[in-house]
Amino acid sequence: MKLLEERIRQDGVVIGDDILKVDRFLNHQMDPMLFKAMAEEWKRLFAKDNVNKILTIEASGIGIACIVGLVFGCPVVFAKKSKTRNTPEDCYMATVRSFTRGIISDVTVSKNYLGPSDRVLIIDDFLATGEAAEGLMNLVNQAGAHLCGIGIAIEKAFQPGGKKLRAAGVKVESLARVGTMSEHEGISFID
Amino acid sequence: MKLLEERIRQDGVVIGDDILKVDRFLNHQMDPMLFKAMAEEWKRLFAKDNVNKILTIEASGIGIACIVGLVFGCPVVFAKKSKTRNTPEDCYMATVRSFTRGIISDVTVSKNYLGPSDRVLIIDDFLATGEAAEGLMNLVNQAGAHLCGIGIAIEKAFQPGGKKLRAAGVKVESLARVGTMSEHEGISFID
Repeated sequence: MKLLEERIRQDGVVIGDDILKVDRFLNHQMDPMLFKAMAEEWKRLFAKDNVNKILTIEASGIGIACIVGLVFGCPVVFAKKSKTRNTPEDCYMATVRSFTRGIISDVTVSKNYLGPSDRVLIIDDFLATGEAAEGLMNLVNQAGAHLCGIGIAIEKAFQPGGKKLRAAGVKVESLARVGTMSEHEGISFID
Repeated sequence: MKLLEERIRQDGVVIGDDILKVDRFLNHQMDPMLFKAMAEEWKRLFAKDNVNKILTIEASGIGIACIVGLVFGCPVVFAKKSKTRNTPEDCYMATVRSFTRGIISDVTVSKNYLGPSDRVLIIDDFLATGEAAEGLMNLVNQAGAHLCGIGIAIEKAFQPGGKKLRAAGVKVESLARVGTMSEHEGISFID
Protein backbone atom coordinates (compact mmCIF):
# COMPACT_ATOMS: atom_id res chain seq x y z
CA MET A 1 0.00 0.00 0.00
CA LYS A 2 1.81 3.05 -1.32
CA LEU A 3 0.29 5.49 1.18
CA LEU A 4 1.67 3.52 4.13
CA GLU A 5 5.07 2.91 2.49
CA GLU A 6 5.43 6.64 1.82
CA ARG A 7 4.49 7.43 5.41
CA ILE A 8 7.07 4.95 6.72
CA ARG A 9 9.75 6.50 4.49
CA GLN A 10 8.76 9.98 5.64
CA ASP A 11 8.22 9.45 9.36
CA GLY A 12 9.78 6.09 10.26
CA VAL A 13 13.17 5.90 11.97
CA VAL A 14 15.44 2.87 11.64
CA ILE A 15 17.61 2.09 14.67
CA GLY A 16 20.34 -0.47 14.11
CA ASP A 17 19.21 -3.30 11.84
CA ASP A 18 16.05 -4.50 13.52
CA ILE A 19 14.09 -1.64 15.12
CA LEU A 20 11.75 0.48 13.00
CA LYS A 21 10.26 3.29 15.05
CA VAL A 22 6.92 4.43 13.71
CA ASP A 23 5.74 6.15 16.85
CA ARG A 24 5.01 9.36 14.96
CA PHE A 25 1.91 7.88 13.29
CA LEU A 26 1.34 4.25 14.28
CA ASN A 27 2.03 3.17 17.83
CA HIS A 28 2.40 6.15 20.15
CA GLN A 29 1.06 9.09 18.20
CA MET A 30 -1.55 7.61 15.84
CA ASP A 31 -2.99 8.96 12.61
CA PRO A 32 -6.62 7.78 12.50
CA MET A 33 -7.13 9.04 8.94
CA LEU A 34 -4.26 6.80 7.80
CA PHE A 35 -5.80 3.93 9.80
CA LYS A 36 -9.08 4.47 7.96
CA ALA A 37 -7.35 4.21 4.58
CA MET A 38 -5.60 1.03 5.78
CA ALA A 39 -8.89 -0.39 7.03
CA GLU A 40 -10.50 0.24 3.65
CA GLU A 41 -7.64 -1.63 1.97
CA TRP A 42 -8.15 -4.64 4.27
CA LYS A 43 -11.89 -4.40 3.60
CA ARG A 44 -11.08 -4.79 -0.09
CA LEU A 45 -8.62 -7.65 0.51
CA PHE A 46 -11.00 -9.58 2.81
CA ALA A 47 -14.21 -8.61 0.99
CA LYS A 48 -15.30 -12.21 0.41
CA ASP A 49 -14.44 -13.59 3.84
CA ASN A 50 -17.57 -12.51 5.76
CA VAL A 51 -15.49 -11.24 8.66
CA ASN A 52 -17.67 -10.61 11.71
CA LYS A 53 -15.06 -10.06 14.41
CA ILE A 54 -11.72 -8.26 14.66
CA LEU A 55 -9.13 -9.62 17.10
CA THR A 56 -6.00 -7.78 18.19
CA ILE A 57 -3.61 -7.56 21.13
CA GLU A 58 -3.05 -4.67 23.48
CA ALA A 59 -1.81 -2.05 23.35
CA SER A 60 -0.68 -0.72 20.00
CA GLY A 61 -2.96 -2.91 17.90
CA ILE A 62 -6.10 -1.51 19.49
CA GLY A 63 -6.32 1.80 17.65
CA ILE A 64 -5.91 0.28 14.21
CA ALA A 65 -8.25 -2.60 15.02
CA CYS A 66 -10.98 -0.28 16.27
CA ILE A 67 -11.05 1.64 13.02
CA VAL A 68 -10.96 -1.63 11.08
CA GLY A 69 -14.02 -2.70 13.09
CA LEU A 70 -15.74 0.56 12.18
CA VAL A 71 -15.07 0.00 8.47
CA PHE A 72 -16.10 -3.69 8.60
CA GLY A 73 -19.10 -2.85 10.83
CA CYS A 74 -18.28 -5.49 13.44
CA PRO A 75 -17.07 -5.75 17.05
CA VAL A 76 -13.40 -5.72 18.02
CA VAL A 77 -11.83 -7.78 20.79
CA PHE A 78 -8.37 -7.18 22.18
CA ALA A 79 -6.41 -9.88 23.97
CA LYS A 80 -5.25 -8.62 27.33
CA LYS A 81 -1.69 -8.98 28.48
CA SER A 82 -2.24 -9.04 32.21
CA LYS A 83 -5.02 -9.73 34.64
CA THR A 84 -7.00 -6.92 36.25
CA ARG A 85 -9.09 -7.37 39.35
CA ASN A 86 -12.15 -7.72 37.13
CA THR A 87 -10.75 -10.04 34.47
CA PRO A 88 -13.31 -12.72 33.61
CA GLU A 89 -12.46 -16.06 35.10
CA ASP A 90 -13.54 -17.90 31.97
CA CYS A 91 -11.01 -16.97 29.34
CA TYR A 92 -8.81 -18.49 26.68
CA MET A 93 -5.11 -18.04 27.33
CA ALA A 94 -1.99 -18.19 25.18
CA THR A 95 1.64 -17.31 25.71
CA VAL A 96 3.30 -14.65 23.55
CA ARG A 97 6.86 -13.40 23.50
CA SER A 98 7.11 -9.72 22.65
CA PHE A 99 9.88 -8.99 20.17
CA THR A 100 10.05 -5.32 21.21
CA ARG A 101 9.98 -5.85 24.96
CA GLY A 102 11.85 -9.12 25.05
CA ILE A 103 9.39 -10.52 27.57
CA ILE A 104 6.89 -13.36 27.68
CA SER A 105 3.26 -12.56 28.47
CA ASP A 106 0.12 -14.54 28.97
CA VAL A 107 -2.64 -13.08 26.81
CA THR A 108 -6.28 -13.76 27.50
CA VAL A 109 -9.63 -13.35 25.79
CA SER A 110 -12.93 -13.89 27.57
CA LYS A 111 -14.85 -16.93 26.36
CA ASN A 112 -17.87 -14.63 26.12
CA TYR A 113 -16.40 -12.72 23.20
CA LEU A 114 -14.87 -15.36 20.96
CA GLY A 115 -16.71 -18.49 19.87
CA PRO A 116 -17.65 -20.88 17.06
CA SER A 117 -19.88 -18.35 15.26
CA ASP A 118 -17.02 -15.87 14.86
CA ARG A 119 -15.21 -15.33 11.54
CA VAL A 120 -12.09 -13.59 12.74
CA LEU A 121 -9.71 -11.13 11.13
CA ILE A 122 -6.59 -10.69 13.28
CA ILE A 123 -5.12 -7.18 13.09
CA ASP A 124 -1.73 -6.08 14.39
CA ASP A 125 0.73 -3.28 13.79
CA PHE A 126 3.85 -5.41 13.21
CA LEU A 127 4.72 -8.88 12.01
CA ALA A 128 8.29 -10.00 12.69
CA THR A 129 8.86 -13.42 14.25
CA GLY A 130 5.13 -14.11 14.16
CA GLU A 131 4.77 -15.04 17.80
CA ALA A 132 2.04 -12.51 18.58
CA ALA A 133 0.05 -13.68 15.55
CA GLU A 134 0.51 -17.33 16.56
CA GLY A 135 -0.68 -16.53 20.07
CA LEU A 136 -3.81 -14.89 18.69
CA MET A 137 -4.39 -17.81 16.27
CA ASN A 138 -4.10 -20.13 19.26
CA LEU A 139 -6.93 -18.18 20.97
CA VAL A 140 -9.05 -18.40 17.78
CA ASN A 141 -8.48 -22.16 17.66
CA GLN A 142 -9.34 -22.64 21.33
CA ALA A 143 -12.60 -20.76 20.72
CA GLY A 144 -13.51 -22.94 17.74
CA ALA A 145 -13.80 -19.76 15.67
CA HIS A 146 -12.94 -19.49 11.98
CA LEU A 147 -9.77 -17.60 11.07
CA CYS A 148 -10.33 -15.53 7.92
CA GLY A 149 -6.80 -14.21 7.96
CA ILE A 150 -4.36 -11.71 9.37
CA GLY A 151 -4.03 -8.03 8.48
CA ILE A 152 -0.66 -6.53 9.36
CA ALA A 153 0.36 -2.90 8.99
CA ILE A 154 4.12 -3.44 8.68
CA GLU A 155 5.75 -6.80 7.99
CA LYS A 156 9.46 -7.17 8.52
CA ALA A 157 9.75 -9.55 5.59
CA PHE A 158 13.40 -10.28 6.43
CA GLN A 159 12.20 -12.00 9.58
CA PRO A 160 10.53 -15.43 9.49
CA GLY A 161 6.99 -14.70 10.73
CA GLY A 162 5.24 -13.97 7.44
CA LYS A 163 6.83 -16.89 5.59
CA LYS A 164 5.97 -19.29 8.40
CA LEU A 165 2.32 -18.18 8.58
CA ARG A 166 1.82 -18.28 4.79
CA ALA A 167 3.45 -21.72 4.63
CA ALA A 168 0.83 -22.86 7.14
CA GLY A 169 -1.90 -21.71 4.75
CA VAL A 170 -2.88 -18.52 6.56
CA LYS A 171 -4.00 -15.57 4.43
CA VAL A 172 -1.67 -12.79 5.56
CA GLU A 173 -2.19 -9.31 4.10
CA SER A 174 0.60 -6.94 5.09
CA LEU A 175 0.12 -3.39 3.83
CA ALA A 176 3.84 -2.61 3.86
CA ARG A 177 6.54 -5.30 3.60
CA VAL A 178 10.02 -4.18 4.57
CA GLY A 179 12.61 -6.12 2.56
CA THR A 180 15.70 -4.49 3.99
CA MET A 181 16.36 -1.71 6.41
CA SER A 182 19.38 -0.12 8.00
CA GLU A 183 20.20 3.03 9.85
CA HIS A 184 22.43 4.28 7.03
CA GLU A 185 20.81 2.97 3.87
CA GLY A 186 17.16 3.40 4.81
CA ILE A 187 14.28 1.12 3.95
CA SER A 188 13.36 -0.92 0.88
CA PHE A 189 9.93 -2.44 0.40
CA ILE A 190 8.91 -5.61 -1.45
CA ASP A 191 5.54 -6.39 -2.99
CA MET B 1 -26.14 10.38 26.29
CA LYS B 2 -29.14 8.07 26.14
CA LEU B 3 -27.57 5.61 23.69
CA LEU B 4 -24.66 4.90 26.05
CA GLU B 5 -26.87 4.75 29.16
CA GLU B 6 -29.14 2.22 27.45
CA ARG B 7 -26.15 0.15 26.43
CA ILE B 8 -24.80 0.15 29.99
CA ARG B 9 -28.19 -0.95 31.33
CA GLN B 10 -28.39 -3.67 28.70
CA ASP B 11 -24.85 -5.02 28.72
CA GLY B 12 -23.15 -3.71 31.86
CA VAL B 13 -22.69 -5.92 34.93
CA VAL B 14 -22.40 -4.49 38.43
CA ILE B 15 -20.20 -6.44 40.84
CA GLY B 16 -20.44 -5.42 44.47
CA ASP B 17 -20.78 -1.67 44.88
CA ASP B 18 -17.87 -0.33 42.93
CA ILE B 19 -17.11 -2.44 39.86
CA LEU B 20 -19.05 -1.88 36.65
CA LYS B 21 -18.05 -4.40 34.00
CA VAL B 22 -18.60 -3.09 30.49
CA ASP B 23 -16.31 -5.51 28.74
CA ARG B 24 -19.05 -6.55 26.34
CA PHE B 25 -18.83 -3.27 24.40
CA LEU B 26 -16.27 -0.88 25.88
CA ASN B 27 -13.01 -2.26 27.22
CA HIS B 28 -12.45 -5.83 26.07
CA GLN B 29 -14.92 -6.38 23.29
CA MET B 30 -15.46 -2.94 21.76
CA ASP B 31 -18.31 -1.60 19.64
CA PRO B 32 -16.75 0.86 17.20
CA MET B 33 -20.16 2.04 15.91
CA LEU B 34 -21.07 3.07 19.48
CA PHE B 35 -17.67 4.76 19.78
CA LYS B 36 -18.42 6.76 16.62
CA ALA B 37 -21.71 7.99 18.08
CA MET B 38 -19.89 8.93 21.28
CA ALA B 39 -17.19 10.74 19.32
CA GLU B 40 -19.82 12.74 17.45
CA GLU B 41 -21.34 13.78 20.77
CA TRP B 42 -17.96 15.00 22.05
CA LYS B 43 -17.44 16.78 18.72
CA ARG B 44 -20.66 18.68 19.42
CA LEU B 45 -19.70 19.38 23.06
CA PHE B 46 -16.18 20.61 22.18
CA ALA B 47 -17.13 22.25 18.86
CA LYS B 48 -15.73 25.66 19.80
CA ASP B 49 -12.52 24.47 21.43
CA ASN B 50 -10.35 24.01 18.33
CA VAL B 51 -9.10 20.64 19.55
CA ASN B 52 -6.08 19.50 17.53
CA LYS B 53 -4.87 16.55 19.58
CA ILE B 54 -6.48 13.68 21.47
CA LEU B 55 -4.64 12.27 24.50
CA THR B 56 -5.50 9.01 26.22
CA ILE B 57 -3.86 6.28 28.29
CA GLU B 58 -3.29 2.67 27.39
CA ALA B 59 -4.91 0.28 27.03
CA SER B 60 -8.68 0.60 27.10
CA GLY B 61 -8.79 4.32 26.22
CA ILE B 62 -7.03 3.76 22.90
CA GLY B 63 -9.95 2.41 20.88
CA ILE B 64 -12.35 5.16 21.84
CA ALA B 65 -9.68 7.85 21.42
CA CYS B 66 -8.74 6.65 17.96
CA ILE B 67 -12.30 6.99 16.70
CA VAL B 68 -12.57 10.38 18.42
CA GLY B 69 -9.44 11.40 16.48
CA LEU B 70 -11.05 10.22 13.26
CA VAL B 71 -14.18 12.31 13.94
CA PHE B 72 -12.16 15.38 15.02
CA GLY B 73 -9.69 14.88 12.15
CA CYS B 74 -6.61 15.09 14.38
CA PRO B 75 -3.83 12.85 15.73
CA VAL B 76 -4.19 10.75 18.86
CA VAL B 77 -1.45 10.13 21.44
CA PHE B 78 -1.62 7.48 24.10
CA ALA B 79 0.42 7.68 27.29
CA LYS B 80 2.37 4.47 27.79
CA LYS B 81 2.37 2.60 31.05
CA SER B 82 5.72 0.88 30.81
CA LYS B 83 8.97 1.30 28.93
CA THR B 84 9.76 -0.76 25.87
CA ARG B 85 13.25 -1.14 24.47
CA ASN B 86 12.47 1.58 21.93
CA THR B 87 10.75 4.11 24.20
CA PRO B 88 11.99 7.61 23.40
CA GLU B 89 14.39 8.89 26.01
CA ASP B 90 12.88 12.36 25.91
CA CYS B 91 9.45 11.99 27.40
CA TYR B 92 7.17 13.56 29.95
CA MET B 93 6.34 11.32 32.87
CA ALA B 94 3.60 11.27 35.49
CA THR B 95 2.52 8.78 38.13
CA VAL B 96 -0.97 7.26 38.02
CA ARG B 97 -2.68 4.87 40.38
CA SER B 98 -5.04 2.50 38.60
CA PHE B 99 -8.34 2.10 40.43
CA THR B 100 -9.05 -1.21 38.70
CA ARG B 101 -5.66 -2.78 39.09
CA GLY B 102 -4.79 -1.20 42.43
CA ILE B 103 -1.25 -0.48 41.22
CA ILE B 104 0.85 2.61 40.61
CA SER B 105 2.31 3.15 37.13
CA ASP B 106 4.58 5.68 35.55
CA VAL B 107 2.98 6.92 32.34
CA THR B 108 5.02 8.60 29.64
CA VAL B 109 4.47 10.63 26.49
CA SER B 110 7.24 11.49 24.07
CA LYS B 111 8.13 15.19 24.00
CA ASN B 112 7.91 14.93 20.21
CA TYR B 113 4.14 14.43 20.30
CA LEU B 114 2.89 16.89 22.89
CA GLY B 115 3.88 20.55 22.92
CA PRO B 116 2.81 24.20 23.25
CA SER B 117 0.93 24.25 19.93
CA ASP B 118 -1.39 21.42 21.02
CA ARG B 119 -4.98 22.00 22.09
CA VAL B 120 -5.71 18.75 23.87
CA LEU B 121 -8.87 16.78 24.51
CA ILE B 122 -8.23 13.99 27.02
CA ILE B 123 -10.37 10.89 26.41
CA ASP B 124 -10.80 7.96 28.77
CA ASP B 125 -13.28 5.17 29.33
CA PHE B 126 -13.86 5.71 33.07
CA LEU B 127 -13.66 8.53 35.59
CA ALA B 128 -13.75 7.45 39.23
CA THR B 129 -11.17 8.89 41.60
CA GLY B 130 -9.75 11.06 38.82
CA GLU B 131 -6.16 9.96 39.18
CA ALA B 132 -5.71 8.85 35.56
CA ALA B 133 -7.15 12.17 34.37
CA GLU B 134 -4.88 14.10 36.73
CA GLY B 135 -1.86 12.18 35.48
CA LEU B 136 -2.74 13.03 31.87
CA MET B 137 -3.36 16.70 32.81
CA ASN B 138 0.06 16.71 34.43
CA LEU B 139 1.58 15.57 31.10
CA VAL B 140 -0.35 18.32 29.25
CA ASN B 141 0.97 20.91 31.71
CA GLN B 142 4.55 19.68 31.43
CA ALA B 143 4.28 20.02 27.65
CA GLY B 144 2.97 23.59 27.85
CA ALA B 145 -0.05 22.46 25.84
CA HIS B 146 -3.56 23.85 26.23
CA LEU B 147 -6.15 21.59 27.88
CA CYS B 148 -9.52 21.98 26.15
CA GLY B 149 -11.17 19.47 28.44
CA ILE B 150 -11.81 15.86 29.26
CA GLY B 151 -14.23 13.49 27.55
CA ILE B 152 -15.22 10.49 29.65
CA ALA B 153 -17.40 7.58 28.58
CA ILE B 154 -18.63 6.54 32.04
CA GLU B 155 -18.28 8.67 35.16
CA LYS B 156 -18.86 7.08 38.54
CA ALA B 157 -20.43 10.26 39.89
CA PHE B 158 -20.58 8.79 43.40
CA GLN B 159 -16.79 8.89 43.46
CA PRO B 160 -14.88 12.18 43.85
CA GLY B 161 -12.99 12.49 40.52
CA GLY B 162 -15.54 14.47 38.49
CA LYS B 163 -16.36 16.91 41.29
CA LYS B 164 -12.68 17.53 41.97
CA LEU B 165 -11.84 18.19 38.31
CA ARG B 166 -14.84 20.49 37.73
CA ALA B 167 -14.03 22.40 40.94
CA ALA B 168 -10.59 23.01 39.45
CA GLY B 169 -12.24 24.60 36.39
CA VAL B 170 -11.75 21.71 33.98
CA LYS B 171 -14.45 21.15 31.35
CA VAL B 172 -15.42 17.51 31.90
CA GLU B 173 -17.98 15.96 29.56
CA SER B 174 -19.05 12.50 30.72
CA LEU B 175 -21.48 10.77 28.37
CA ALA B 176 -22.97 8.60 31.12
CA ARG B 177 -22.89 9.56 34.81
CA VAL B 178 -23.65 6.74 37.21
CA GLY B 179 -25.34 8.12 40.35
CA THR B 180 -25.81 4.85 42.18
CA MET B 181 -25.17 1.23 41.37
CA SER B 182 -25.44 -2.06 43.16
CA GLU B 183 -25.51 -5.71 42.29
CA HIS B 184 -29.14 -6.07 43.38
CA GLU B 185 -30.74 -2.73 42.54
CA GLY B 186 -29.00 -1.99 39.27
CA ILE B 187 -27.79 1.37 38.00
CA SER B 188 -29.24 4.87 38.14
CA PHE B 189 -27.90 7.71 36.01
CA ILE B 190 -27.80 11.45 36.73
CA ASP B 191 -27.71 14.30 34.20
